[in-house]
Order: sequence, then structure tokens, then C-alpha cells
Amino acid sequence: MKRVDVQRRGIGMVCEGGRSMLKVWAPEAKQAFVCTREDKLPLTAQAFGYWSSELSLCAGDAYRIELDDCVYPDPASLCQPEDVHSWSQVVDASFAWTDNAWENPPLSAYIFYELHTGTFSEEGTFAGVEAKLDYLKELGITAVELMPLAQFPGTRNWGYDGVFPFAVHYAYGGAKGLQSLVDKCHEKGLAVVLDVVYNHVGPEGNYLSSFGPYFTDKYKTPWGDAVNFDDAGSDQVRDFFIENALMWFRDFHIDALRLDAVHAIKDMSAKHILQEIREYVDELSAFTGEHYHLIVECDLNDRRFLDERSLNGYAMDAQWNDEFHHALRVCAGVERTGYYADFNGPEHLAKAYRDAYVYDGIYSETRARSFGSKTDGLDGNRFIVFSQNHDQVGNRMFGERTSALHSFEMLKLLAAAVFVSPYLPLIFMGEEWGSGSAFQYFISHSDPELTDAVREGRKAEFSGFYEDGECPDPQAEETFQNSKLDWNKLEAYPHKCLHEYYTFLIAMRKDLQALHSGDRSGVRTSVTDPSGMLQLYRSAPGQDLVCLFNFTKQQQHTDVPGLPENAILLLDSAAKQWEGPGTAPQESPSRILLQPESVLIILWR
Amino acid sequence: MKRVDVQRRGIGMVCEGGRSMLKVWAPEAKQAFVCTREDKLPLTAQAFGYWSSELSLCAGDAYRIELDDCVYPDPASLCQPEDVHSWSQVVDASFAWTDNAWENPPLSAYIFYELHTGTFSEEGTFAGVEAKLDYLKELGITAVELMPLAQFPGTRNWGYDGVFPFAVHYAYGGAKGLQSLVDKCHEKGLAVVLDVVYNHVGPEGNYLSSFGPYFTDKYKTPWGDAVNFDDAGSDQVRDFFIENALMWFRDFHIDALRLDAVHAIKDMSAKHILQEIREYVDELSAFTGEHYHLIVECDLNDRRFLDERSLNGYAMDAQWNDEFHHALRVCAGVERTGYYADFNGPEHLAKAYRDAYVYDGIYSETRARSFGSKTDGLDGNRFIVFSQNHDQVGNRMFGERTSALHSFEMLKLLAAAVFVSPYLPLIFMGEEWGSGSAFQYFISHSDPELTDAVREGRKAEFSGFYEDGECPDPQAEETFQNSKLDWNKLEAYPHKCLHEYYTFLIAMRKDLQALHSGDRSGVRTSVTDPSGMLQLYRSAPGQDLVCLFNFTKQQQHTDVPGLPENAILLLDSAAKQWEGPGTAPQESPSRILLQPESVLIILWR
Repeated sequence: MKRVDVQRRGIGMVCEGGRSMLKVWAPEAKQAFVCTREDKLPLTAQAFGYWSSELSLCAGDAYRIELDDCVYPDPASLCQPEDVHSWSQVVDASFAWTDNAWENPPLSAYIFYELHTGTFSEEGTFAGVEAKLDYLKELGITAVELMPLAQFPGTRNWGYDGVFPFAVHYAYGGAKGLQSLVDKCHEKGLAVVLDVVYNHVGPEGNYLSSFGPYFTDKYKTPWGDAVNFDDAGSDQVRDFFIENALMWFRDFHIDALRLDAVHAIKDMSAKHILQEIREYVDELSAFTGEHYHLIVECDLNDRRFLDERSLNGYAMDAQWNDEFHHALRVCAGVERTGYYADFNGPEHLAKAYRDAYVYDGIYSETRARSFGSKTDGLDGNRFIVFSQNHDQVGNRMFGERTSALHSFEMLKLLAAAVFVSPYLPLIFMGEEWGSGSAFQYFISHSDPELTDAVREGRKAEFSGFYEDGECPDPQAEETFQNSKLDWNKLEAYPHKCLHEYYTFLIAMRKDLQALHSGDRSGVRTSVTDPSGMLQLYRSAPGQDLVCLFNFTKQQQHTDVPGLPENAILLLDSAAKQWEGPGTAPQESPSRILLQPESVLIILWR
Repeated sequence: MKRVDVQRRGIGMVCEGGRSMLKVWAPEAKQAFVCTREDKLPLTAQAFGYWSSELSLCAGDAYRIELDDCVYPDPASLCQPEDVHSWSQVVDASFAWTDNAWENPPLSAYIFYELHTGTFSEEGTFAGVEAKLDYLKELGITAVELMPLAQFPGTRNWGYDGVFPFAVHYAYGGAKGLQSLVDKCHEKGLAVVLDVVYNHVGPEGNYLSSFGPYFTDKYKTPWGDAVNFDDAGSDQVRDFFIENALMWFRDFHIDALRLDAVHAIKDMSAKHILQEIREYVDELSAFTGEHYHLIVECDLNDRRFLDERSLNGYAMDAQWNDEFHHALRVCAGVERTGYYADFNGPEHLAKAYRDAYVYDGIYSETRARSFGSKTDGLDGNRFIVFSQNHDQVGNRMFGERTSALHSFEMLKLLAAAVFVSPYLPLIFMGEEWGSGSAFQYFISHSDPELTDAVREGRKAEFSGFYEDGECPDPQAEETFQNSKLDWNKLEAYPHKCLHEYYTFLIAMRKDLQALHSGDRSGVRTSVTDPSGMLQLYRSAPGQDLVCLFNFTKQQQHTDVPGLPENAILLLDSAAKQWEGPGTAPQESPSRILLQPESVLIILWR
């Protein structure tokens, strides 16, 4: 990889050597100053409402911005060492990188491991993650996906309440800590994916509106007024987020961004903000010679997000496919309430294997309207699938992982269902050994009213679901502590076995082109009624493969006519090797008996 | 043209022969009835919240719909003979058409004449329009564009307060009157364009929300909650408007729809409602063998509305190009306030001639953001231009036409600027003879509070602009009467001359491929600084042409090097023939002197 210096677009405080330059957008301000602990220096008005000045601040110096007699932290602050309300700190973004040999692999090689820095390790820091990189490498994953790191109020938060998009959370280790982690990941051959939030800003410590029209009341989102991507002043708001995307790639060597909930980005401009981010990121690629991946979380089932620019698409590299998850979890027996009501089990899982979107123009009862578009022609590597993720775990009242909800046999079945898909697999930290810790919703706001509102909102959300049991208090330190991974259990029965099983699955996927290929043309499925047995055929040149899924709690037969004699059983999740009841006795080579909640993978060449 | 019966999609009351069928959407209703003056019959619940019944009602019968003890008119009523609050009337949509020989011309042949049925003729009816068809034919226009006809409260309204999208306004002559008018237009060789409003519904007599979720608070529009095109229940709302579009083509033989303000249609579905309307309309075309044109009013400068479906576009045939108007009016000396502030005169007009959109990605001061996309590759026939229209006239406090604002010479200059463009020309009723009538904003609501609110809103809108002078009362009968065309002036000086001039311009445009071709590749412009002289070159095989515009109040020279000897002067707007000061004396063939506020058109082959 050729790394070259690319000019910052010039937002926020840029510090190099002993000099620094501040540029801040405050179009309505009559006067603007930068305040240090000792001094107050005027900023000069520039075009389009920007204010700037060259300064002699050095890395580590504290500063704030005064607009018309009110003092605020810098919206583009790179560091908030005290809290979200207080001083910003100058950061020198340079770093002694040792990853010159690193090349960002194509997305098709990504096997994602989503983790929350604060709860992944006992330390709850980047150093804590670093200490586990060898473990992750040995597991076989290729990409570490970090939940959002932007500075949030307090020290406990999922990250989606971040209010300083440029400031790496101080308690995690700040900018230097992240740079060190990325450098180490690259040394180990691991890519780094960062979750970023461009659709809203957290409720506490959000001073953006004091600076300019960062929000617009033209559109409503679940978090209130939408970020202003298409109203007056939006050029500068767009620049702010574009610069943010560029910063992660340029200054932190991040390999891919996961853009949170882009369905809540409302933009009726002729050029959508995602198209513009794509253009700027590709321009950076032209400098560095490296492709940076842009992944979106999107619940619109709209291929426009993935289509090329020449087709008026947004040209995102990939998107999360929640519908695969929903169909899979219904197969596993989750109650069909809420969004699960739209999914019928094996038939829909089969559709997700073939078509990516289950709702691809058909009528959705839950949404009470027709929904989605077809994904014809899009490679499987454009979609990311999982049997659980931070949301699917943490948005349950008790934050139960699948390990707390399903049998051990089902955990193995769920895992295989993900790793044999034509899509990119993602696992959620601890899933690979069936960690028993919950991943609960936790915050540490300092505003008591806000805290009460979040608490009550959380209770109200689940009021219909759980009749007994107290809703965990999101603000309690205990809720956070309970959500930390209990690594001491890893070596115990049956966690160790599950961990070995995941390691095996990952290696198998990497080995077999018929599995890791994103070519969906060879994907065939069949579902047997009424047993619900699902067959998934996959193929690559010289490789054919069938996966037989039994999601039921009974033994089931399934007919696999025409299996050649040289077919080999690659995996039986029920095998004794995987602490299962053992492979079921077979009567005939074309009529196969499966144990309850098990999967067989059969290969021939 | 092959006309065949196409099945109604089955919304509202369908009456054929002596039988009728009612289908109404009321997803929340527990009971639904159809009420006649004598009777009350239950409707049967169908899938997706529809209610229906076969009935023995005949054309002319009155009916209403009762939902859970409340009685309403039918949202899909075809006729409201009393008012917007009262009985609906059964209409048999069949008609003794005589237009079998009619073929809808390609849009490239359209020369639009926009008219408001209520004020175009003394009668204020379709019959009044019919009586003037020979006049329009002789003028040379090829398409009559009718402002919206949907039933509105009272008898005086522009039409944008319509509340029954399927009911042709009773006072204009109703459904039969419109069918007769269209039949006569086709007999004369005139296409008919209808303005339809799918972005909002008027404020009085709108009972839609009593029937179902026709609106969503997800998005704000200038008229309040947006029409629900992408929220729960939107399939049925979409069907309602799709059926409306189909009805005009199928039952009224309309040739093109002009979709009002589609920028206020908010739809984040994977398939935009305009894409779906296009699909259904094309399906109808497949039956009838005729292409129906879909034209949009859109202020987003977004080519997505015009791009083909294969490019994820909305595949509209054409759009109004207000920016051409704005640039032209600034050339003519209109004050650069409001949206005019973004336009600088001849340079921007030259850009509009070349690029269609002036704001095609560049920064707009008025919008305080970068705006628009480039139109490369789109034919000129995809854009409709004008020097005035109902909005540009009527949205002034006094509703002054250009004839009340500019000199006679400037009127001729403005007209030529439109007819020599590579875009489709539109004129607003009476423009062609410089009618002195205003076209003011008028309503006839029955709700006094609403009337006051409209009155006050209108005053507030113009409070900054006019210090003296009372704002005309929109509710006053006089305001409506003042807006009627004063046809008795047509034969008087100088109206008759202007009328002849427009007739000449239209004929000239039709004659010359270099003018009516939408091929923009031959469009070149130059603007001389500081005189502001604008040269527009157009060409077609074997035809070259230059238009020289002098928007100033002084004589101006302009250099036209290399004019061949056989070049002929096609038009001098200052000629005595056109009641001008006479062609300016020429010193040299390549340095041409223009009279103030005049245009020369020179042709060579």
C-alpha cells in the first residue's frame, strides 16, 4: 500500500509540528474566538460562514470556542479529555505507522467480528482489544468491526450517543490508542471496520446547533430533526461529515466504514450525501492506491444504495442484510412478534439465500405496504449477514444473546447457516464461544432528566413484552458490568467446543470457493413441506455442495437424489466431535436422516 | 390510434349500463354503507381495507358513504354537483368518442397553451374553451394545457385546492363537458394536457383522512403533512393516484399529464411513485398503442426525474424549467429579489440555453447550498420553457402579466427568446396578444376561518414587497372577474400586432428544424460584456441560425463575424411590421446594430 499525505479539507483543529490551524463553521456568529486556559484569540471570518486562525497551540493544549459570548467545545474536536461539555484538546494526528506492508483485502475476504470496545475486554479499552488480537487471528476472522467510538457523555455507552464525531472516546484510549490498535491489527493481518453515525447526534453534549444549521425540521427521524443534508447551509454540514469519513481512512488507517442507519439520512439533493462521500473517498483512494470499503446499515431494501454511480446508484460496497437474520431467527423458533411477524421460517430463509432481500417488492404485513426491490445482478459479497449483532442482542429487554435463548445444538445450526451463505459473515463478540453474558443497553449520561427519560423510554418499549422482571436500569454501572464478556468461561464446557466449531466453520468457508464465492447464480434452495427441511445448494467450478438444515426439534428425513458416490460429509453439527448426540444412522445414500436442530454439509467435486 | 377498453383498477363508483360497482378504501372502519337519498346498503369488507358492493345505481343518482355512523362524499367521486361537502353523483364514464383518427404527437411537436378554464372565456366553462379552439388552432399552438380540474370548494379557484381528484369540476361542465372538449380538440388536431395535483389536497372538503392514512407526518410540505406514498397503507394511496392518472388517459383521452410540484412528493420507497405511475401508464400504452406523456413540475434540478428506468430514473417525459424563466425575466429587468436573486441576466440565460438547468451543481445563494445536477445527454425536448405561466403571473400580489410590467418591445423580445430555445415552448392564455387582464389569486371557500387565513396569508406574503396598495381579496368575486381575459381588446392596437407576431414566431419555429430540434449539440452562446448582448447559435443539417438579443434600453452593436452572404434576416422584432421603431441602420455585415429591447434572427443554409 502506498500511503501519502492527503491534505485535510480543513475542518477543526489541525496540528502539525508546533503549529496549528483552527477552522470552524459558525455562519450566524458575529464574533468568534478561540479560548485557551490563559488566552483568547480572535478568529477571522472566511467565506461561507467559516472562521479560522493560525495558532501556536501544541498537541495536548486545551481550547474552546467562543461565539458571541458563549463558550463551547469544538464540534470537530479530536479529543475531549474531561467530558462532552468541557475543553477540547489539540491532537497531532501523525503517528509512527508500521503498516506499510498492509494491503486492505477486497471485501469478499472479510469475515467480520463486531465488538464493543468498552465491554469486549475487562480493561474496556483499545489496549484490551489489542491483547486479544492473536485470539481473533486464530479464530480466523479477518476484520475487526468496532462499534462507534465518537466521544459520548460519561464512560458507558454503545456509542450511538456520540456527539463529537471526530473525537475518539477518551476512556477507550483516544486517538493514539486507536491508531495503535489499527497498526497492530494490520500487523496481524486484520482489517479494521469502524461504525460511524451520520444520521443523528446524541442527546447530551450536542452543541452543533449553536454553531450552525446542522439539523433541519424538514424531516423527522427516530432521533428528532434530521441532519441537514439538503437544506440551507447543507454544503458545510456535508463537508463536516465527508471530512469525518476521510479522516478515519487517512489519519487512522481504517479499512472500511459501517455507516449506521442510512435510512435515517434524508437527502433529496440531486447528489445524495452517500454519493458524495463515495466520490471523496474514491479520490482519497486515488492518492493512496487503496480501495476503502463503505458499508451501510439500511432497512429500505433498496438496491439504489448498492448500484453503481453510472446507474444513479450510491455505489456503497455492501449493506447489512437484517432480513436474513430475521428469517433465520424465526427458523430457530423466535416468537413472531414485532418485525419477526413478517417472516415465516425456512421458506423466507431460502428466499434470503437466493435473493438477499426477502421483501423485494412484495407486501409486508408489518409495514402495511409493498416493500423493497430485487437484487438481481448484485454479488453476494454486497450483503453482510449474521445470526445476531449488537442491536439484535441489545435491543431485547434483557440483552440476551442466542446462547441464552437457544439450545447448544441450535447455536451450531445458526452459525453454520451464516457461514455457508453467499454473503459476508459477521459474528458478534463472544458469539463464537456462546458467552453467557448479556449485552444490555447502557448509558452514563450526566443529565438526570435525560437519564430518566431514557430509563422510562426503555421500560415503555418493553412494557408489552415482559410481564414480570424489572427492566435493567441503563444508567446503572452494573448493567454495563454485566455486559462485559466473561472470558474466564471460554475454556469451559461447552464453550471451548463451540469455539472450535466456529474456528472449523471459518476455515471451511475460507477453503471452499463454493462457500466463500459471492456468485449467487449457483445458489439453489428447496424446502420440504411440512417438515420444514431446508436444502441449500452452492457451487463453484469443480465444487458442489449441499447444506441440509433441520430447524425442528425432531429427527427429520430429507431426500437428496443424485448424490454422487464420492460425496463427502464435511460437517455434521450433531457429531459427537461437536458435543452433539452423534450422526444419525443412515438408511440410504439419497434419503438422509438428520438429528434435531442440526445441519449436514456434503461436498462433491 | 387503437383505443381499447382497459379494466379500471376498481376504485370508486364504476357505472356501466344500468349496473354499478362501488369500491372504497376504509381500513379502520368497522362498518361501511352506501347511502342513497332513499336507501342505505351495506358494503362488504374486502382484503387490504377495501369495501365494495354491486349496486343498481344509475348515472345521475346521488350517493354518499357512511363509515361508523359518519357520512361522507366518495373520495373517488366522479361528480360533486352540489359542493365538496355533499352528495356524490354516479357518472357513466362512457362517451361517444369521434377521435378514432387522432394520434397523440410526440412531445417534440408540442407547443403548449396553458389556460384556466374559469377565466379563459367569458362563460368560464369547457364550452367556452371549445368556442375558441379555431382561434388556438390558427395561432399555431398544438397542445391545450388545462389547469387542474378536480372539484374544489365553490366556483372560483385556480384548481390547486381540488379535493376530489377524480371529479371534473361541476361548474366547468363536469366529466361530459371535458370529454366533449377533448374530442373537439382532437378533431382540430390539438393535444390536451391536464395539470394534476398528487402532492397535496386542498384545505376545504378534504375527507380523505376520514377514510384512511392518505397522509403521513413523516414529511413536511408547504401544505402540511405529505401525501402518504411510503408509510403504512401507502399501497392503497398509491393505487388511488395511479388509477387517477390512468383514468384521464383512458376515460378522457387526455394526451399528457402535467404533475404539479413533484418536489413535494416525498417517497423513499425502493420504487418511487413516479416510477410506478410510469409503469402503469406504459402498460395502458401497450393496450392502446399510444404513448402518453408525463410531464413534471419539479424544482429540484435533478435529472433522476427524467433518466430512464434502466438508470434508476423516474422516466418522466419532460419537466418544466423554471430557471429559464427566471434568467429570462432578470434579463428583462425584473428586480432581483426572492428567487430572482440567484440569476444574473444574459450569462445565466445563455447557460439555460446550453445546459437547461442554471444551477447544475453550483452554489445557489438563495438556497444557501450547492444545487442541481448536469443534464448532459438529455434532449432539449425534455424541458418546457416560458416567459410567464399561471404561477409567475398569479403569484405576484397584483397578478400582473408581463404586458403590465414591460414595454411592447420587450414583450416581443421575451416571446422570441422562448420560441428559439431548444426546449418546448409554453405560453399562458392571453400572452399572445398581451392581454391587460391580471391573473390574480382567487378562491371561493365556504369556511370563513379558512378564507380569513388565506386572505391574511396572502397579505403577509407580500407585506415586504408593496408598501401602498391593498392586496386584492382572493375571496372576492371581483378578483375572479378581473382575472378573466378581455377578449374584446384582441383586435385593438397593439394587441392585434402582437398576436400576429406570436403567430409568425410559432410558424417559424415549426418551419425550421434548427429551431424545433431538441438536439442541444448545436447550441452555442456568447455574451458580450458589458453591453450584455446575447448571441444564440442553433443549427440543424443544412440550417444555421443566430439569434441576437438586446435586452438593454439602448441601441447596441454586436459582432457576428463570418456571416455568409446568403444569410437572411428572418425576424427583427423592432421592424415597423411589428409596430417597432424600425430596423436599425447597418454599417457592416459583420457588426450589427440592434434597436433597444429587440431581437434579430438570421438564417443561412
